[in-house]
Amino acid sequence: MTGRARMGLVGLGVMGRNLALNMADKGVGVAAHDPWPEARTRLTEALAETPGLDITVTDGPADLVASLPAPRAILIMVKAGEPVDAVIASLTPLLAAGDTLIDGGNSHYLDTQRRAAALEAMGLRFIGLGISGGEEGARHGPSLMAGGAADAYETCRPVLEAIAARFDGQPCCARVGGDGAGHFVKMIHNGIEYGIMQAIAEAFVLLRDLGGMDHAAMAETFRQWNDTALASYLIEITAAILDRRDDLGTGPLVEAILDTAGQKGTGRWSSEAALALGIPTPTITEAVFARALAALRNDRVATAAVLPAPAAPAGTARWEGAASVEAVRQALLGAVIATFAQGLAVIQAGVQEHGWDTDMAKVVEIWRSGCVIRARLLDDIARSYRGTEAPGSLLRAPTVVGLLTEAQDGWRRAVALAVTHGVPVPALSSALAYVDGARSDKLWANMIQAQRDFFGAHTYERLDRPGSFHTEWIAPKGTA
Amino acid sequence: MTGRARMGLVGLGVMGRNLALNMADKGVGVAAHDPWPEARTRLTEALAETPGLDITVTDGPADLVASLPAPRAILIMVKAGEPVDAVIASLTPLLAAGDTLIDGGNSHYLDTQRRAAALEAMGLRFIGLGISGGEEGARHGPSLMAGGAADAYETCRPVLEAIAARFDGQPCCARVGGDGAGHFVKMIHNGIEYGIMQAIAEAFVLLRDLGGMDHAAMAETFRQWNDTALASYLIEITAAILDRRDDLGTGPLVEAILDTAGQKGTGRWSSEAALALGIPTPTITEAVFARALAALRNDRVATAAVLPAPAAPAGTARWEGAASVEAVRQALLGAVIATFAQGLAVIQAGVQEHGWDTDMAKVVEIWRSGCVIRARLLDDIARSYRGTEAPGSLLRAPTVVGLLTEAQDGWRRAVALAVTHGVPVPALSSALAYVDGARSDKLWANMIQAQRDFFGAHTYERLDRPGSFHTEWIAPKGTA
Repeated sequence: MTGRARMGLVGLGVMGRNLALNMADKGVGVAAHDPWPEARTRLTEALAETPGLDITVTDGPADLVASLPAPRAILIMVKAGEPVDAVIASLTPLLAAGDTLIDGGNSHYLDTQRRAAALEAMGLRFIGLGISGGEEGARHGPSLMAGGAADAYETCRPVLEAIAARFDGQPCCARVGGDGAGHFVKMIHNGIEYGIMQAIAEAFVLLRDLGGMDHAAMAETFRQWNDTALASYLIEITAAILDRRDDLGTGPLVEAILDTAGQKGTGRWSSEAALALGIPTPTITEAVFARALAALRNDRVATAAVLPAPAAPAGTARWEGAASVEAVRQALLGAVIATFAQGLAVIQAGVQEHGWDTDMAKVVEIWRSGCVIRARLLDDIARSYRGTEAPGSLLRAPTVVGLLTEAQDGWRRAVALAVTHGVPVPALSSALAYVDGARSDKLWANMIQAQRDFFGAHTYERLDRPGSFHTEWIAPKGTA
Repeated sequence: MTGRARMGLVGLGVMGRNLALNMADKGVGVAAHDPWPEARTRLTEALAETPGLDITVTDGPADLVASLPAPRAILIMVKAGEPVDAVIASLTPLLAAGDTLIDGGNSHYLDTQRRAAALEAMGLRFIGLGISGGEEGARHGPSLMAGGAADAYETCRPVLEAIAARFDGQPCCARVGGDGAGHFVKMIHNGIEYGIMQAIAEAFVLLRDLGGMDHAAMAETFRQWNDTALASYLIEITAAILDRRDDLGTGPLVEAILDTAGQKGTGRWSSEAALALGIPTPTITEAVFARALAALRNDRVATAAVLPAPAAPAGTARWEGAASVEAVRQALLGAVIATFAQGLAVIQAGVQEHGWDTDMAKVVEIWRSGCVIRARLLDDIARSYRGTEAPGSLLRAPTVVGLLTEAQDGWRRAVALAVTHGVPVPALSSALAYVDGARSDKLWANMIQAQRDFFGAHTYERLDRPGSFHTEWIAPKGTA
């Protein structure tokens, strides 16, 4: 990185501020602005504490643009939606051909496509940049998923690679395709995050409610799991969460937290994209619905009062100590793999739909560090994609076949146990149904197609000959 | 019905043609048109076979409009999307204030809202009409879900009620709210249809593959189930389908049908609406994804070759003859109820979102006959909604609580059996997870909210005091 690299930055919330500090650490000069005076003050205060950083807080867009050498590059870190359009509109009159705007928020990829087209028509360059890793990642090394024209990416690549996380020395930063590709990949990254978080939460409830484990034992279990194929950031922080005592009470903090979960839209967008592309993502979508169900807390409390839990009948599956703990681990591993398979399948379909020149192996490689879904497993998955034979579905990658074959017995036992005892495990069970469906050369759909032909004359295809067929089914009595 | 009632009809596909014949049967005169000459010819031929019907096939929109007494009512039966706009554009210059256009296709409710606003601004009336019942329903009595202004509905109510199916003498036809309400309700009707069809298909596969039953025995089983709380059109036709022999082969026809299923969008739209409204519809959405998975047949066949099915370990759940058949029936009943609960919850949320004056009991009442999801259960559900205490969630309606309490043991055993033996049952298992989640006063979401606060400082609420909290969680080692 040369000392002369310089980048503009608009939006000084926690993510923007931390990215500014990250850039300055790496020798990139920053000209920063936020329309909100308090955000500017907060950065000024942070700079006073750590003198010597090459960050200038400017008074407005004109100041900011004037302080950058041409061709300029400006990173926009504001809330997705209208604020992004507002910032772009405030900057474009001040820019010159060849300048680059980078949207680092969680924008919808269709908005990014629209903005890329509009800015390119003005002679400007545009990068839609997915950033994962939360506050910590922004400060010390996030995973960066860039979408845009190759030449636009080249101009800002040195800065982006400098601030990105590293895995085996390689920056977790890449151009993953044109216009909206970066935000599309980030959206699906978040969808995968939803699925894995839900699966972990279900595993936690099984250990607690069926295994009767205390929080110290569960923390230790998650720490042990982190030495297996499950090794990942989300497993690590789950162990840390389980260890945390409540400062305002006496028990574990997690049990003092209300069981409602927020969402900011990218999980829902992932499901919408999957529906539009016709790619099944049941586990990601169950996770989105699980948050919706959690949010309907009053409704649940009212229903709990009238709809009893099962009295588990004698002779049915019971918790069996360490064997059941291992079964839950296998269920979680299976669900994590299924979630990655679903997400990567949507990305592949999106790439095809939009004609992006995406290197799928690269997508997985830049998730190996810096981002919330980073996991040891991803290194193996990346190798599958790098292999001579592209796996098509992730479920056919040799590593994955091995893991699923090993995990499926415990996975089935854990889900059967949950189902028997009334513990809702939508992620663990939908993932299992997904894998069982995806490995079926004969599914239920012949019955559905027969029904559709029966009541709607929708026709059907046959297994034994080509063509489209319709049958005059005999209506049963009593259906007039 | 007076002999003078007269309605225009544009679009003479099988649905339009059958509705014309239905109207004429009920003494409603019809002026019909289709831009496609062959469609006009087919109706003319049908009329030659059944003389005396008051149906005029007109040569174009001008002819059609001129042959109707004012105020005119014209039913549009063309493919959803642009064709509807094209027909509307061809008619509006010929119409006068107070005339009514009725869109009887599967239009997206947002399109219907847009069209209603545009036509009302021109002084015209617009009804978005959901029609269910397939060809047979159109010919002899469909279920009709109308959305639009009350006065617009009143002008065409006599004709619509005349052609609708009847339940206990009451027409299965109602105005279910303003502008897009009819198409919204029809969309969710179709989403429910997806969920129930998928659940039936899974039950069929369990009987066949785990129970080893032949098709005659399965047909008989479905006929017996039709004498229980499952009694419904879809159960009836499933029995008829299982009985049907293959004219081009030797076995049951259903097994000659390719296991891919088509879809026309309303299931996907239902899931999208549910996602947008934040209402969980996991079973409807699993059914949509199940069709997508079925369509990816080449992929499944390739995966089947490398990913083995489970060798069910000794001592695990096994098929136990009649007891297991009854368990499958209970699972199917539970899934049907859960699907209705999900769909009705989305309608309630949609009604609230759009400010429609919808009578939820009426919605259920007009589904009791004529439509594809007609079921004996709906009469009980309608009574719950008519009761002094609105049930809120359907899961709290006394009849439903009774049925679910009875069904849950078998439901759990059937799903555990499927899961153990590798039969994918996404609808049956997602429905169970939905009910188990909806009756939980304590869900997994406290863990998810802790994780979100850990990596994204998203804050959380506490069970024991109001306010929003953030914890400086201690990062585990190795996550830098």
